Amino acid sequence: METVLLTGFSPFGGETVNPSYEAAKRLQGKWVHGYQVVAEELPTAFGRSLERLWQLIDYHQPRIVICAGQAGGRDSVSIERVALNIIDARIPDNEGQQPIDTPVVEGGPAAYWSSLPVKAIVKRIREEGIPAHVSHTAGTFVCNHVFYGLMHRLQQEKGVRGGFIHIPFSPEQAVHHPGQPSMHLDLIVRALEVAIETTIRTEEDIREAGGTIS
Amino acid sequence: METVLLTGFSPFGGETVNPSYEAAKRLQGKWVHGYQVVAEELPTAFGRSLERLWQLIDYHQPRIVICAGQAGGRDSVSIERVALNIIDARIPDNEGQQPIDTPVVEGGPAAYWSSLPVKAIVKRIREEGIPAHVSHTAGTFVCNHVFYGLMHRLQQEKGVRGGFIHIPFSPEQAVHHPGQPSMHLDLIVRALEVAIETTIRTEEDIREAGGTIS
Amino acid sequence: METVLLTGFSPFGGETVNPSYEAAKRLQGKWVHGYQVVAEELPTAFGRSLERLWQLIDYHQPRIVICAGQAGGRDSVSIERVALNIIDARIPDNEGQQPIDTPVVEGGPAAYWSSLPVKAIVKRIREEGIPAHVSHTAGTFVCNHVFYGLMHRLQQEKGVRGGFIHIPFSPEQAVHHPGQPSMHLDLIVRALEVAIETTIRTEEDIREAGGTIS
Amino acid sequence: METVLLTGFSPFGGETVNPSYEAAKRLQGKWVHGYQVVAEELPTAFGRSLERLWQLIDYHQPRIVICAGQAGGRDSVSIERVALNIIDARIPDNEGQQPIDTPVVEGGPAAYWSSLPVKAIVKRIREEGIPAHVSHTAGTFVCNHVFYGLMHRLQQEKGVRGGFIHIPFSPEQAVHHPGQPSMHLDLIVRALEVAIETTIRTEEDIREAGGTIS
Repeated sequence: METVLLTGFSPFGGETVNPSYEAAKRLQGKWVHGYQVVAEELPTAFGRSLERLWQLIDYHQPRIVICAGQAGGRDSVSIERVALNIIDARIPDNEGQQPIDTPVVEGGPAAYWSSLPVKAIVKRIREEGIPAHVSHTAGTFVCNHVFYGLMHRLQQEKGVRGGFIHIPFSPEQAVHHPGQPSMHLDLIVRALEVAIETTIRTEEDIREAGGTIS
Repeated sequence: METVLLTGFSPFGGETVNPSYEAAKRLQGKWVHGYQVVAEELPTAFGRSLERLWQLIDYHQPRIVICAGQAGGRDSVSIERVALNIIDARIPDNEGQQPIDTPVVEGGPAAYWSSLPVKAIVKRIREEGIPAHVSHTAGTFVCNHVFYGLMHRLQQEKGVRGGFIHIPFSPEQAVHHPGQPSMHLDLIVRALEVAIETTIRTEEDIREAGGTIS
Repeated sequence: METVLLTGFSPFGGETVNPSYEAAKRLQGKWVHGYQVVAEELPTAFGRSLERLWQLIDYHQPRIVICAGQAGGRDSVSIERVALNIIDARIPDNEGQQPIDTPVVEGGPAAYWSSLPVKAIVKRIREEGIPAHVSHTAGTFVCNHVFYGLMHRLQQEKGVRGGFIHIPFSPEQAVHHPGQPSMHLDLIVRALEVAIETTIRTEEDIREAGGTIS
Repeated sequence: METVLLTGFSPFGGETVNPSYEAAKRLQGKWVHGYQVVAEELPTAFGRSLERLWQLIDYHQPRIVICAGQAGGRDSVSIERVALNIIDARIPDNEGQQPIDTPVVEGGPAAYWSSLPVKAIVKRIREEGIPAHVSHTAGTFVCNHVFYGLMHRLQQEKGVRGGFIHIPFSPEQAVHHPGQPSMHLDLIVRALEVAIETTIRTEEDIREAGGTIS
């Protein structure tokens, strides 16, 4: 049996839910092309999030790791392409820490690429009628921290692929954020499932324009 | 038996569907607090849309008329408050007409207010976890044209209330409009149903801040 | 000698300047095609703003009245086309008043059109290389209140034309509003001057698409 | 005499000017704290832009290199923090090339950090009343290509610092891009000058929150 580890985060920034974990847990235990999904929650805290992720990798020995996080203000599913070795917190995390301009991994390279087939995933999610795009910045808060830490760890895990997906506010959240777009949880769940399926079935990513001019 | 007339539009501007009619038809025949919903499609064309709406009012003799239209680019359900006596078409309608700076009704007043309880509707839709707001402009295309024509007609229909609701792109449409927000059709359908319910149950609108500074 | 009355507002909403009056006063005393500009400041307060405007009209007996106001969040000069008979304050005014859903003029019509040549003004401002557009909502705060009150008064002033222009934040303000666009004061001043010139020289507005779909 | 090399780009994407070079050339020959500015234009073309930049570095032997580029749609001056080793062109460059998913430098690291004091620059530009922010993505078109190529080259140039600054559309351009923000060229010129000054005077960047949550 092969495992896909799918994580979401705990609520932060005054929210009472985090749609990333709400979506992830709806895929808990699901079989996708012979792989089983294990859904877990990470704390939205710099230190403990990564510690927890690494424990989960040790324990579940997954072949694929997808971490999902909430990106309030975005209008579509963002398949992140690159993780940066920087923490620059605009607000404190859930434990009150607000590090500024420190690396995620001391001495690590400036960035790691996602090892998910990002272009193929975007294409397939769109084919399902769900807005999606490749993103070139995962921010500089706990999401990017976890993403960088994941990719750093996976350098030593032969054959294990991983990456990060940002999702919009849920409609319930957007009620309290006038002017912000949102996405129905059903679509998020389906997008995550498609991302898993596509990763399993795609060895080599496709080439298709997905960039931005600036 | 009392009737609620709920209209949506035909697709326009290169789209193959119009979520306003897709949503409306899912409420066709539904009973809401003793009223039955009749869902109809209006053509996205200046002349014929209003002609058709007036025929439908003659035929169905509704107590409530709610017209819904697609507002690509908006992120939440917009309960329109005011219809303007102007047509100023940025693109041609479905019959190739593009009138500029002509009134909807020659000699009519500059504007009509919606006679729906707009504030109560916004409040109730939000309570369902669906983003909604009061809007003070329905544009100057076929939507506003129909809205103004409806309210003009209702001046002579004692006790019949009516108004207009703009809805975002569907997710399927937004796939082809990168950077534009969208809303799941289930939420649109529910929002329209709540609007109907709230209109039936609310004689006098509530007072609650819903304005904009500019 | 003919007079153009040009007003701006006092700062509000926590700001220390209001670019609308900053711009207006730079045109104080200026001669434009035989008309002299009188620049005055209106308080950002529901009651007193309109009282003051009406006094200024009594005193200066202007042929043209242009009221300018700040519209934080807009990216270009907005020539307002229509004033609504509604106050719906999202925040308190400078005197702590926050009326909700009350008319500007009890018993007045739902709306008045600007009597400025709005399309010609937009065209000429753009020809100067300054972004501008026709707007169909002036909000529901003090700006719209003054605009409606002005147009109500001008119904009785034969041959006097008037209207409202919204302007973006100044760059200095936008420094404190990350993610909000801004416009250099020199461009605002020039846009207001062009609006005055164009109004003087244009009896009949041009017809040119300037509308919005929604 | 020490030299600052300041580059802008040629117009692209259907524009007739590029404000990045318009701004740069207004600083040509200017002395800033004992350094002289040399302003040069780079072609908006993948191959030749970097070739030209490297020639200019050979020729001028600058101590500081700042490349500026136009970022249509952004509302403030963006001090770029990181260059990615990827080209993913959404539109063809000025020579018709549209590479997709190829590295800027074969075998190079995923990313390089700017060696400008980005936080200090943002702080100082804001103090001048000009909106500015740290950006974590320079896109995947020619701007990022030049930025990455610059930082790659500077790995071998001891003591030479460099980076990239994105600027908004000029107002003249935004006239043709309704809904897009813009910035007056005088502010861009001043922002670039402040960036140069601050780089000269700042050995060690300050620490101040400048990150994004996502």
